[in-house]
Amino acid sequence: MSNNPSFVLRKIEDVVYEERSIPDVKDDEVLVAVKKTGICGSDVHYLVHGRIGDFVVEKPMVLGHESAGIIHKVGKNVKNLKQGDRVAMEPGATCRVCDDCKRGRYELCPDIVFAATPPYDGTLARYYPIPADLCYKLPDNLTLEDGAMMEPLSVAVHSVANISQLRANQSVVVFGAGPVGLLCMAVARALGASRIIAVDIVPSRLEFAKQYAATDTYTPPKPQDGESRIAYSQRNAKTMMEQLGIAERGPTAIDLVVDASGAEVSIQTGILIAKHGGSYVQVGMGQPEVQIPITTLLVKEINFRGSFRYGPGDYPLAIALVSQGKIDLKPLVTHRFSFDQAVEAFQVTRNGKSADGKAVIKAVISGPDVSPDDLS
Amino acid sequence: MSNNPSFVLRKIEDVVYEERSIPDVKDDEVLVAVKKTGICGSDVHYLVHGRIGDFVVEKPMVLGHESAGIIHKVGKNVKNLKQGDRVAMEPGATCRVCDDCKRGRYELCPDIVFAATPPYDGTLARYYPIPADLCYKLPDNLTLEDGAMMEPLSVAVHSVANISQLRANQSVVVFGAGPVGLLCMAVARALGASRIIAVDIVPSRLEFAKQYAATDTYTPPKPQDGESRIAYSQRNAKTMMEQLGIAERGPTAIDLVVDASGAEVSIQTGILIAKHGGSYVQVGMGQPEVQIPITTLLVKEINFRGSFRYGPGDYPLAIALVSQGKIDLKPLVTHRFSFDQAVEAFQVTRNGKSADGKAVIKAVISGPDVSPDDLS
Amino acid sequence: MSNNPSFVLRKIEDVVYEERSIPDVKDDEVLVAVKKTGICGSDVHYLVHGRIGDFVVEKPMVLGHESAGIIHKVGKNVKNLKQGDRVAMEPGATCRVCDDCKRGRYELCPDIVFAATPPYDGTLARYYPIPADLCYKLPDNLTLEDGAMMEPLSVAVHSVANISQLRANQSVVVFGAGPVGLLCMAVARALGASRIIAVDIVPSRLEFAKQYAATDTYTPPKPQDGESRIAYSQRNAKTMMEQLGIAERGPTAIDLVVDASGAEVSIQTGILIAKHGGSYVQVGMGQPEVQIPITTLLVKEINFRGSFRYGPGDYPLAIALVSQGKIDLKPLVTHRFSFDQAVEAFQVTRNGKSADGKAVIKAVISGPDVSPDDLS
Amino acid sequence: MSNNPSFVLRKIEDVVYEERSIPDVKDDEVLVAVKKTGICGSDVHYLVHGRIGDFVVEKPMVLGHESAGIIHKVGKNVKNLKQGDRVAMEPGATCRVCDDCKRGRYELCPDIVFAATPPYDGTLARYYPIPADLCYKLPDNLTLEDGAMMEPLSVAVHSVANISQLRANQSVVVFGAGPVGLLCMAVARALGASRIIAVDIVPSRLEFAKQYAATDTYTPPKPQDGESRIAYSQRNAKTMMEQLGIAERGPTAIDLVVDASGAEVSIQTGILIAKHGGSYVQVGMGQPEVQIPITTLLVKEINFRGSFRYGPGDYPLAIALVSQGKIDLKPLVTHRFSFDQAVEAFQVTRNGKSADGKAVIKAVISGPDVSPDDLS
Repeated sequence: MSNNPSFVLRKIEDVVYEERSIPDVKDDEVLVAVKKTGICGSDVHYLVHGRIGDFVVEKPMVLGHESAGIIHKVGKNVKNLKQGDRVAMEPGATCRVCDDCKRGRYELCPDIVFAATPPYDGTLARYYPIPADLCYKLPDNLTLEDGAMMEPLSVAVHSVANISQLRANQSVVVFGAGPVGLLCMAVARALGASRIIAVDIVPSRLEFAKQYAATDTYTPPKPQDGESRIAYSQRNAKTMMEQLGIAERGPTAIDLVVDASGAEVSIQTGILIAKHGGSYVQVGMGQPEVQIPITTLLVKEINFRGSFRYGPGDYPLAIALVSQGKIDLKPLVTHRFSFDQAVEAFQVTRNGKSADGKAVIKAVISGPDVSPDDLS
Repeated sequence: MSNNPSFVLRKIEDVVYEERSIPDVKDDEVLVAVKKTGICGSDVHYLVHGRIGDFVVEKPMVLGHESAGIIHKVGKNVKNLKQGDRVAMEPGATCRVCDDCKRGRYELCPDIVFAATPPYDGTLARYYPIPADLCYKLPDNLTLEDGAMMEPLSVAVHSVANISQLRANQSVVVFGAGPVGLLCMAVARALGASRIIAVDIVPSRLEFAKQYAATDTYTPPKPQDGESRIAYSQRNAKTMMEQLGIAERGPTAIDLVVDASGAEVSIQTGILIAKHGGSYVQVGMGQPEVQIPITTLLVKEINFRGSFRYGPGDYPLAIALVSQGKIDLKPLVTHRFSFDQAVEAFQVTRNGKSADGKAVIKAVISGPDVSPDDLS
Repeated sequence: MSNNPSFVLRKIEDVVYEERSIPDVKDDEVLVAVKKTGICGSDVHYLVHGRIGDFVVEKPMVLGHESAGIIHKVGKNVKNLKQGDRVAMEPGATCRVCDDCKRGRYELCPDIVFAATPPYDGTLARYYPIPADLCYKLPDNLTLEDGAMMEPLSVAVHSVANISQLRANQSVVVFGAGPVGLLCMAVARALGASRIIAVDIVPSRLEFAKQYAATDTYTPPKPQDGESRIAYSQRNAKTMMEQLGIAERGPTAIDLVVDASGAEVSIQTGILIAKHGGSYVQVGMGQPEVQIPITTLLVKEINFRGSFRYGPGDYPLAIALVSQGKIDLKPLVTHRFSFDQAVEAFQVTRNGKSADGKAVIKAVISGPDVSPDDLS
Repeated sequence: MSNNPSFVLRKIEDVVYEERSIPDVKDDEVLVAVKKTGICGSDVHYLVHGRIGDFVVEKPMVLGHESAGIIHKVGKNVKNLKQGDRVAMEPGATCRVCDDCKRGRYELCPDIVFAATPPYDGTLARYYPIPADLCYKLPDNLTLEDGAMMEPLSVAVHSVANISQLRANQSVVVFGAGPVGLLCMAVARALGASRIIAVDIVPSRLEFAKQYAATDTYTPPKPQDGESRIAYSQRNAKTMMEQLGIAERGPTAIDLVVDASGAEVSIQTGILIAKHGGSYVQVGMGQPEVQIPITTLLVKEINFRGSFRYGPGDYPLAIALVSQGKIDLKPLVTHRFSFDQAVEAFQVTRNGKSADGKAVIKAVISGPDVSPDDLS
């Protein structure tokens, strides 16, 4: 039955609504009526560039992967979910049998079917089929919008709580105050970080970060004429340490650096500012190659890790932290659109602000209405 | 009593023998009659450049820090050593009370007194005073030359066994087949690595590596005209994977990359060749900044660590592995000199080969004779 | 100069005030004017039994080890403290050079000089000499009484944050609602535990625990006639799981069991109630041997750890959690005594309540006044 | 088609051959023609007692779970295996979707379908269907008998290499020199343990252990009249330390205790003999409750773990260690039987020796011949 309107990227800068058929539900799957979908930078990137690295849009693809919805149908083996349940949807279905899946690192599964990563369709449709164990019931005190935000929050939980294992009373610097950076700060605060320093070059983003989750903010100075990139980062690190009272070691040293910017200067400064024996996690993607101060990393024995998507336990912890009131996602949803306004939602996200000049943190698109006939 | 001949670096390219006084021995120290001292690249670097990073030779400094000797005198609190004991000497005396010392990371101690790192004198002298717990008794089946080699071997143990926690049956690539790289291969083999691939641009070094500890060797191709550094590394990684049958994942993937070269192309290739979820350790120092493929590191969630000197348990494990016959240090000592030939020993190490054309891996200088009168 | 009044245990049930000489201060030490000292169960145990395990009081020993005070004199190498500083005192001075000290496990040092553990004198005196790095400056918002409480709080931090590595959103059961058990609950809450279940057989202790840090409480049923100990524990575990809605696995399962009671039934029940793959930490001492359900421990692959005293980083984290307002120590100090009331303080602690019937959690003894002449 | 002869336990002491139908093969499964099956203590236990703990034989069940065979049919999704491949069979099929499966602890999966654990049939049949990822291709230098032995070897790998993370140069005591204990010794040796002490009360087993993998052996003394169990264990531990030159700390201390006996005296002695900060792993099952010296465990901060079956990576490491020649399984297979001699094989295993008096370590039963018609 063709009753599944979907928002499809055909090729660069070419999106269209298509009426697709309602997918079958396998025994271990559920069919979710998608209700809220946040727009991610990667969705926009596919729209504008048609590719991210080796992932190329070669055939029409439904966009969207930050979603929550309501269970519409359940496969015959599904026991823990029933029609009507409100759920957050983890958008990567893994193979379950490779070494990485088995050893607890399923985010590395080579056969992952990830929503809106070519060639797999995303969630901006009326219905989306998904393995039942990737649907997490939302506690009563969470909204479906909160549910959609679990995707970027899980990215932050993965990097700060899982990969980096932040402990209570540690100090953190987060470079980049976009959605993921802000959520990394929120996770750090929820885990009991003693100090959370937000770094960004846009003053309004720092203001928001300060209100939201950061204890301190820092705006890098302008580079000087003829200054090499590393010289600039060294000056930046020194200025930052003086301005914020950061030492190389001891109680005022930085235990963890999170880079959610992908910018070379942030990465360089982050390595320079981390304490001896400290940790660094790269969660932001930017230019594919950057210069780093490798001797500093060596001498300080920095533990430098990459963090990609999310793995076991990340969604549950994300949901719990919000449900317990330790993280508030509401301030991050700045713009809301109906399903037929999807083009506008993407436009606003690309621009970084809406027509009224309001800065976008996260734009969320509501799903199309569900017809009672769809179940028959 | 001035009876302690010492080999002193006064300033760049200016070394001299000085007759120094025999140091006092504190209650927790011993005085060691230094018998064997290997020459390290850092010794040569101070001779040629007068500095390493922020460490600048500003006053005359005795060279040498890879040493073993015979206990000559013991401080009054020392119980576990006695005159005549043959010992390997760990050349970094730490403060014992800082956070890093207390939490088991004493290699990061900011107040470390490290032999032949300005402003502290090194071990190329008749006598050297050292805290008793930094002297490790040599088992009977180890020579004093083996004892001197414990210093570079501990660097390798620290990076491969401690920082990287290599497990049995893992596969390793080691970039750089100099002394530290060779010892990293030897440690990997001793810990049960299934495959040890040595990478170097000098064929004779790879030949030695293959005989010594590597299971495979690889010589990078020449860069092409106009090829960017990263493009060259990508080609290098691809060639290497094809040539050696390395996959991105699974049993033929690379669990651990050790860079003992400090060369940018090695670092780039190492990140490109490590498996998803794999480990990388930087133990070689080269140019202070290098370009790295950061997106690859992120997407593969590589655990990228710096390894500096050695920490708790490294010397004991190094000694045990040699004593148990799992590592043979003898093939690495290629050149031997008496104390009054120290200038020649440095010359040969700088050149990388002796007058007869024989390649230098490690040159070892014997200590000056001890006069029976010194004890009186 | 004999100007150091001290509260001395001569033998079982025989305590006396002695006027001792003021100790010399070594170069790396400070002399602290002890201001507040909590009484610990072990102090009482020495008073009543003259021994704890192999530690036997064979000569007069000053009691007390939970102390804070004011720096009175500093040794000549001491840089970070000065006269007048208010400090918490970590009462175990370790050797700094053994394997355990070096690898970050100094609580296991065989040569530890621990206050009021025979043959070493404790802190119930006007002055106590201590290595400077074992004195932790108190933030302005902490009292000296808070400072004395850092000792038992560090025991709790060691077991819950360090040995057990409790993570946010985990659920914890704490057996025993005495001072250490209550502090374990407080640490669990400060680290973000989702559920903290206090178990005790004394209802008033559970009431206090609920107000203080627990989310739930549980009172075990009475054993039945002829019921074996393990059958009773099995019934207890089952009742507890039903009553509190605890499952064997999943979100309502118990991630961590802390036994601060030392009672066999608690230990048995704790193993039975922990989740598959869960953790258990034994911090309470009771009878030296207990029966445990070893097959259950095996099949669930429980990580069962002992926790002894405190190690690197525990005092700083304890101080930080209180200073940040995440733990409030004030409700635990139920009784206060002057130095010349020490006998009464011990009596009240032994009885578990004061003459007015008020239950004792922690009794604190103030130090004797310091004469201005002592410095001359 | 009924062409699948199977060895079935109907109830206690009642076994029979049944002709069962050949199972269907699901898309992700393979059908293995079982060629070699070792008899495990648990198989015998079901035969004699009809239950192990809560697992009760309530309907006829095929016995056997230590098997290797040849791929007979592959499901349509199976890519890495083909008819004729020789494989070791991991006998526990897990659910893939529970928290434990996802976080890399699949041995704890509550829905595991484990061969010959009620109510699931075992492998003593002509054909056995199994998920393809649980079949591990045997390298050419391994026999099918080696393949069957991978099951108990994986138990040992799980406890020694995975749960305990034994490192090179550590010293180990293994209590119990039965099949699992011997294999734990073999794994310890393969991982580079410096000393492997076998403990058993049967001299001939110790002799075998010494030849096979142990560096030292120890026979406990007889208990004395009136001696309590713990007093006996204390005497045993003391005797053992004296006899073997074991210290409480330092290079002659015991890093890891493995109990493969399940005997209370072993468990007690193991805790008493482990070093401060040492590890202990319980892999042997015996009486469900035992008395342990809990205060010793606490004061030494022992890391006491249960080890159950095997998890991610255990089978591959087991196969690799044998293939690399680090473990030789052949000496352990002492008795061989054809499929129609299964009753005798069980009898011999129960008795611990065959009619000729030869001690049984492992008895292996060959599978029934495969008819070419079975494929049609």
